[in-house]
Amino acid sequence: MKSQDLTTHISLAHGNGGRLTRELVDELFAPLLANPLLDTRQDGACVSVNGTEIVLTTDGFTVQPLEFPGGDIGSLAVHGTVNDLAVMGATPLYVTLSVIVEEGLDAAQLRRVITSLGRAAAAADVSVVTGDTKVVRRGEGGGLYLSVTGVGARNKAFDLGLTHIKPGDAVLVSGAVGDHGVAVLLAREEFGLRGEVVSDCASVLPLTAALAAIPGVRFMRDPTRGGLATVAHEISHGSGCGMRLVYDAIPVREPVRAVCEILGYDPFYLACEGRVVAVIDGEHASSAMAAWRALPQGRDAAIIGTVTAGPARVVLETSLGGERMLEELEDDPLPRIC
Amino acid sequence: MKSQDLTTHISLAHGNGGRLTRELVDELFAPLLANPLLDTRQDGACVSVNGTEIVLTTDGFTVQPLEFPGGDIGSLAVHGTVNDLAVMGATPLYVTLSVIVEEGLDAAQLRRVITSLGRAAAAADVSVVTGDTKVVRRGEGGGLYLSVTGVGARNKAFDLGLTHIKPGDAVLVSGAVGDHGVAVLLAREEFGLRGEVVSDCASVLPLTAALAAIPGVRFMRDPTRGGLATVAHEISHGSGCGMRLVYDAIPVREPVRAVCEILGYDPFYLACEGRVVAVIDGEHASSAMAAWRALPQGRDAAIIGTVTAGPARVVLETSLGGERMLEELEDDPLPRIC
Repeated sequence: MKSQDLTTHISLAHGNGGRLTRELVDELFAPLLANPLLDTRQDGACVSVNGTEIVLTTDGFTVQPLEFPGGDIGSLAVHGTVNDLAVMGATPLYVTLSVIVEEGLDAAQLRRVITSLGRAAAAADVSVVTGDTKVVRRGEGGGLYLSVTGVGARNKAFDLGLTHIKPGDAVLVSGAVGDHGVAVLLAREEFGLRGEVVSDCASVLPLTAALAAIPGVRFMRDPTRGGLATVAHEISHGSGCGMRLVYDAIPVREPVRAVCEILGYDPFYLACEGRVVAVIDGEHASSAMAAWRALPQGRDAAIIGTVTAGPARVVLETSLGGERMLEELEDDPLPRIC
Repeated sequence: MKSQDLTTHISLAHGNGGRLTRELVDELFAPLLANPLLDTRQDGACVSVNGTEIVLTTDGFTVQPLEFPGGDIGSLAVHGTVNDLAVMGATPLYVTLSVIVEEGLDAAQLRRVITSLGRAAAAADVSVVTGDTKVVRRGEGGGLYLSVTGVGARNKAFDLGLTHIKPGDAVLVSGAVGDHGVAVLLAREEFGLRGEVVSDCASVLPLTAALAAIPGVRFMRDPTRGGLATVAHEISHGSGCGMRLVYDAIPVREPVRAVCEILGYDPFYLACEGRVVAVIDGEHASSAMAAWRALPQGRDAAIIGTVTAGPARVVLETSLGGERMLEELEDDPLPRIC
């Protein structure tokens, strides 16, 4: 799939979160919708209403199957939205819900995922304040799609931005990567594999809140579609700095590693739905680690690399002491993963 | 299609804006997502962030075809969102955009509709501040679905609410009904009919702004999915009052009437995308009419009926001096109309 294909038709790889997604955004959406508030390098926006700063984010959820070990499209939609606000240093307050249902969807399944969505919202202390439902004909939808918009209040404890990142900063991840991607993959039962992997789908609010008291936090992002590798590239591209990641330091659960080896996936490119990648002044990295490891959802947190001087690229130090480039995601390993 | 079918599968009629949509919302979404801020009789919500009141609305857009005379899914998505804020008496400020694309969509068509979306946003003075794009496999989408959330500032000139409505109030419509529905129907070219009908798809901000200076404005709504008849029922159900509409007073363009007669549709149930239905203290109805008729988009405005004492029901006075009940929409005349 070459980049010039954007000029003819949209491909699955335009939705993988990697290079072609970035090109679709940079070449089509960004110029056509340009305005001073639109920063397509962010997962949200900070805007002002009558002098009050609010943070907005929106996401479409198309995961297939609709229910998987550890979650479903309903809880995923709330967590994905709450997490985008959390990593922007905002306190989530409200969400809106747009539902697109395919004719023939099992009403009991719709009831289960909306129940789950309501519970996830209540647990994260956000209210679903308005919504809309459309029904499309059989064969014109994938069962159920949700689009959720989140509204948050800016938390002044954080001053985050890609441009604050400096060589010498530490790169941290709050837990093992690839769980969500592998859990959904196994739930599809396409590969004749079964496994005990459960999605990490969860609110990251406790993780981001734990960093509010740590000085030197430059940037946070949840590594969803495109995984850790894609966030590493976003940080590198956005800051103009390089990044060195240490292969052996990146936590990957054994069953996730095993499934990836069998099927030929790289866990660094698989979606997480309850992790945070943070860039922190190297001096304060160990305080941040201690704060995360004190939490149940942070006990596998690790310092996985460092920010280096430019050029913008991501280098992976391998187990054998060598190094290789961690390339930007090109093809489409897992459509409808989130 | 009986109501109890909700217990098994979702049908197209659950998305028509009529009785089954209301039951889906009342029996599934409302109880499962209940919180003090969720009022499913409204097209949006008024919420507070650090003491500042903001108005939120969200809508999914699934219109087929993606481009039609007078508009396309891009301009429709902006106008639909801006109009929901406008009729709530809010000033639209920001929109967010969630895009779900089907693999294989013509990239030139995507570019055209996003260009149109950007122009509609600029014309309505709203900024697209954040977005998200997902790509689903061929056969799992209908080309392109958009979900747009709008954020507005509350305009204190209005004090609107269904509970403010009283017997004796006048019911006004800002222009002819059914244009959007018929324009999209003809654009589908399924019926071997051609016509000159153009969608009324437009911002209603000038119309709502014109009423800001008129006393006694109780309620405004844009009659989209389900048309004028559905809004009449929403007003009647929500206020507990009855409504009498006068058939001959309701403006319907001649080509719209002709297409409806041939195909057996009732224009009162067809979507408008640039009209306002307003309920106004009877004493001030003529001032409101004068304000609307002074505008190019209001020159066909009409007083079409009156609010009566309960029970909640909508009666239509026919041309021949008789009367009949204007029933709530039951079946699904036009899926993917907006």
